[in-house]
Amino acid sequence: MAEHLVYFDALTEPVRVPTGTLLAEAARMAGLEIGQPCGGQGRCGRCTVQVLEGNVRRRSTLRLSAEDVAQGFALACQTVVEGDCRVSIPPQEKIERRLTTDRTVSEITVPPGYNYELDQTIHRVHLSLSPPSLEDQTDDLSRLLTALKQQAGFTSVSTPLPILRKLGEALRAGDWNVTAILDVHDLFDGRYIEERLVDLLPGRVPQEEPIWGAAIDIGTTTVTVWLVNLLTGQVEAQASEYNGQIARGEDVISRIVYASKNGGAAEMRNLVLDTINQLLATVCQRYNVRKKDWESKASPEQIVKATIAGNSTMMHLFLGIPASSIRLSPYITAVNHVPLLSGQEVGLNINPLGIVDCLPGVASYVGSDITAGVLASGMDDTNRLTLFMDVGTNGEIVLGSNDWLVACACSAGPAFEGAGVYCGMRATRGAIEEVWINGETYEPTYRVIGGGKPSGICGSGLISLLAEMFMTGVIDKAGNLNTQLGINRIREGEYGLEYVIAWGEETQTGKDITITHVDIDNLLRAKGAIYAGYSVLADSVGVPLEMIEQMLIGGSFGKYINVEKAIQIGLLPDMPWEKFQFLGNTSVRGAYYALLDHRARARIKEIATRMTYIELSADNSFYEAFMSALFLPHTDLNRFPSIAQALKSPASAG
Amino acid sequence: MAEHLVYFDALTEPVRVPTGTLLAEAARMAGLEIGQPCGGQGRCGRCTVQVLEGNVRRRSTLRLSAEDVAQGFALACQTVVEGDCRVSIPPQEKIERRLTTDRTVSEITVPPGYNYELDQTIHRVHLSLSPPSLEDQTDDLSRLLTALKQQAGFTSVSTPLPILRKLGEALRAGDWNVTAILDVHDLFDGRYIEERLVDLLPGRVPQEEPIWGAAIDIGTTTVTVWLVNLLTGQVEAQASEYNGQIARGEDVISRIVYASKNGGAAEMRNLVLDTINQLLATVCQRYNVRKKDWESKASPEQIVKATIAGNSTMMHLFLGIPASSIRLSPYITAVNHVPLLSGQEVGLNINPLGIVDCLPGVASYVGSDITAGVLASGMDDTNRLTLFMDVGTNGEIVLGSNDWLVACACSAGPAFEGAGVYCGMRATRGAIEEVWINGETYEPTYRVIGGGKPSGICGSGLISLLAEMFMTGVIDKAGNLNTQLGINRIREGEYGLEYVIAWGEETQTGKDITITHVDIDNLLRAKGAIYAGYSVLADSVGVPLEMIEQMLIGGSFGKYINVEKAIQIGLLPDMPWEKFQFLGNTSVRGAYYALLDHRARARIKEIATRMTYIELSADNSFYEAFMSALFLPHTDLNRFPSIAQALKSPASAG
Repeated sequence: MAEHLVYFDALTEPVRVPTGTLLAEAARMAGLEIGQPCGGQGRCGRCTVQVLEGNVRRRSTLRLSAEDVAQGFALACQTVVEGDCRVSIPPQEKIERRLTTDRTVSEITVPPGYNYELDQTIHRVHLSLSPPSLEDQTDDLSRLLTALKQQAGFTSVSTPLPILRKLGEALRAGDWNVTAILDVHDLFDGRYIEERLVDLLPGRVPQEEPIWGAAIDIGTTTVTVWLVNLLTGQVEAQASEYNGQIARGEDVISRIVYASKNGGAAEMRNLVLDTINQLLATVCQRYNVRKKDWESKASPEQIVKATIAGNSTMMHLFLGIPASSIRLSPYITAVNHVPLLSGQEVGLNINPLGIVDCLPGVASYVGSDITAGVLASGMDDTNRLTLFMDVGTNGEIVLGSNDWLVACACSAGPAFEGAGVYCGMRATRGAIEEVWINGETYEPTYRVIGGGKPSGICGSGLISLLAEMFMTGVIDKAGNLNTQLGINRIREGEYGLEYVIAWGEETQTGKDITITHVDIDNLLRAKGAIYAGYSVLADSVGVPLEMIEQMLIGGSFGKYINVEKAIQIGLLPDMPWEKFQFLGNTSVRGAYYALLDHRARARIKEIATRMTYIELSADNSFYEAFMSALFLPHTDLNRFPSIAQALKSPASAG
Repeated sequence: MAEHLVYFDALTEPVRVPTGTLLAEAARMAGLEIGQPCGGQGRCGRCTVQVLEGNVRRRSTLRLSAEDVAQGFALACQTVVEGDCRVSIPPQEKIERRLTTDRTVSEITVPPGYNYELDQTIHRVHLSLSPPSLEDQTDDLSRLLTALKQQAGFTSVSTPLPILRKLGEALRAGDWNVTAILDVHDLFDGRYIEERLVDLLPGRVPQEEPIWGAAIDIGTTTVTVWLVNLLTGQVEAQASEYNGQIARGEDVISRIVYASKNGGAAEMRNLVLDTINQLLATVCQRYNVRKKDWESKASPEQIVKATIAGNSTMMHLFLGIPASSIRLSPYITAVNHVPLLSGQEVGLNINPLGIVDCLPGVASYVGSDITAGVLASGMDDTNRLTLFMDVGTNGEIVLGSNDWLVACACSAGPAFEGAGVYCGMRATRGAIEEVWINGETYEPTYRVIGGGKPSGICGSGLISLLAEMFMTGVIDKAGNLNTQLGINRIREGEYGLEYVIAWGEETQTGKDITITHVDIDNLLRAKGAIYAGYSVLADSVGVPLEMIEQMLIGGSFGKYINVEKAIQIGLLPDMPWEKFQFLGNTSVRGAYYALLDHRARARIKEIATRMTYIELSADNSFYEAFMSALFLPHTDLNRFPSIAQALKSPASAG
């Protein structure tokens, strides 16, 4: 096969590739990262590059205008090399390392009454063995097992090979005193208790020495790790980071598509492993700089147990389990209840035999982020009728109480996370996060994260903007821009009608920041899907929304939205504001509870088992509800009495 | 540190090494193999090289004469580089690939009444699953577990991560028909049954398709693998090969010493893994060339279960478990009862989840080669008082019956395997295997393996030679050469008195083949140790040797020795010849029985548990018995009445 040289303007050396290689692949071979939020499907246009010279073939030019193509622009994920060429990569939106924890790091309270002896599955015991002699030639393992039985009461101890390998040295280096760390857990639905040796340390480890655990939330966008001293239950450090998979797709569907490609699954797994392992190093480092001089240093290898929550796709990709059946009807996971694994098996840089407990999920789109979230929210333990929502790229919704739980998921799409929207961006520095529109002049004012000039608009900004446009009449209830207002901010743009939020001179890029009628449609579909989700869910169990006593909203998304405006656009139901409670990252908090207390862990399993999952796509009523919710706030204004009221007295808006 | 160039005559390029590097190490770095039968302890002299030029320092010159040293000869394992040098490696005795199985391959009879359904721990079941739908979104794993329960009665199935990874594909590729392979075994001393999924194949595998297993014997010298169809119990192919560790030490002690060096343990493990994996490929290949056209090919990856027998040192080194405590008083193993492992964990190229069952041993010097051997011999199941012996570099001896079993081990040393003897060699082509001495002329005749000129003498030849020399009076009962005979075959050689078996003109090397008084001493010590072993063992339980009803001799050693001559030198007890039975490789046969039948496996465990190990080195009477046995046939001639008789009528000898 012929080979060609591709010269990237960012590099001095060309890369040699065979005919037919994708530009995205060539860039990767050259060591350049081109973001592919849609997973290389040619949908998002974020991987646009400019071919300055040479022979390429575009398989698709979706999202590119004829003029773009004439200027050499091409989608790197859809364009193949057919001759030597020279390619320029336009400066990309740089993912700022502005971590969500910068906002959310907080003192986590140890669950009241936490008792290491009673609650923890990890046990650390000191054993004093009688040394062998010519009269007693018992092998090391039998000697250890006898001591575990006689001195600590463990009778069903399993000893993985790595323990056998370190056994002789550990016993002798400590002069027949040894510290054993075991995890005690159920096998086969509680029909048997296994006591698994996780580590064996020579001598007598001081009693107050921490025993390290980690609670981990693998979010589609953000991964969070908490470092926990299992002895005290204290969270000693926290860290979050973008999931390294982001560059290969922003939503779970794109990730599954990417993972289905040759080598994609391994790449996805390694990306998220790198993220987690980096975070494990970070939390240990953060603990070490804070610790007292006389305290021992923490290192990831000392972590003997990790609980992991995440949506089903994240869990599959993390474990290297093919996820393609999640994406296709009838939407089946390979596994909801993952057996206990070890650090070594999954590739985490913790103690190789450290217990890795992937928390159980319910279905393809209701994973353990939700079961853990339900635990953290406490809704399974209250008699108050509760609606719990975790809104991200997917919206997961749970309704119920200590009596019953039903759940559904709806694909909101990434619009509320700033993706799939023309001037959208993540909630990082430079994003417009709130907008106000003057009801008479239709002139907007806005607030930018971090101050300074805006470069785009993020999810909360979009909700705010949509609400303001609607309440002031810039758009009608169907989302159509009102061209009758006679203002220059409403104009015909490259993609049709649009509203200008910020003029080029005010922005970082020098280009206007606008919202197009396509964006508005996307936002309506996103909020419509979520509204339809919880209303159909409530309907399906015969519960009117008004009966709901509390609305618990989890996920970092939920932390920043303006309730009033979210109600105005019909995203949240029209309820007294005091019913809403924002819980932050409920997923990692649930993982933390499960890490500490085997009863909490059992409760998550029980939640997963008793939660009834309702597949909305199987339900015609969802489609109808969705269609009705595509209006602002809704076709049926009776459902939003406070908005109806406000619309009658426009003075209250804007 | 200074570096020097070492030029080996076999190579065109020199190798660069730092000051102080051993010549053996330099050779290895250059890719040259120098055999180190003693493990690099400077004992055996087999790694002798000639330094033609340059600066080296000899740490030891044991086994080298002053003249040797003057000519530049040096032990590669004891000589360090201190300047550039030029080294010649003399042509070494090449290990011929003449395998023991060439003599021992035989039709193995399937144990009568073998019944796959009842005896086997491996189960292969076909399952027909109902496909998922929007109405039934059960995850793949739960669907499979339900089918396993409802269609096959398995209720405690564990599913390792690799199964989860192939689950979705296996179910869908077979259109929801799937073949599951499980191993059913006890956990925690039979208190729980685990049903572990080993493989999952799409569709319905034909009922007659073989299920592959392997019985493996890891001998210190030879590794043997049998390929077994678990469905029929038939041994379909056999192969043996020298243990790749041989070049790093001929006996277990040298191997442990080598493994204790930096990186030595990993090297030892890899060497034996390479040997076994090569043999697994060989047996499959041997089956494939024999199989019918319509039969499927066998490949190592299809092997779902392997049972492994071997002495405790071999087992530790194979599993990468440090073995140093085996060598040092009080001689402790890390583990006698190894938990079930998988192919992947231990590094065997079988199915990654294939069950690896390392059979249980008793003590440092009574490993599972003996427990499996006892099973194969049937001595644990007979009421006839039996002495079972496995004679190799170590002699392991078991006495008892279905009532009780006692065992001991004695270090015979490698003399009977031809090592540590001046003209000794293994029982390969060119070895003298039997000697006759004329009682009047003292002229020897001999038989050579493979015919042709001899190049050395092997174990059975040494026994034969020693017996003939004794019975004809060439040596006295203390092993002293009789210089009064006035024959030129008895002479003063480089190492003192010696007897010439073959003159240089008759030999392959052109050099005389002799036995020195040092060799005779070594042989007396070897036979004395074994005699002392079983006589002290019998004594310790108050059993006179005459009471023993059968003598079962295992190990390939036992297959070739001449009973009459072995009695004449006092190696075997003076008993009617019909009491002796030679069983060949009892270790692999025991492993084969355990592979087939879980009751046989349980019996080996029972044998290991009820066998009382007697540590001879703790016993003063052993030393006394050993000293008394250093004579031919013994100090106390009453113990060998038939020999006493023969010595009275010399006509019967020679």
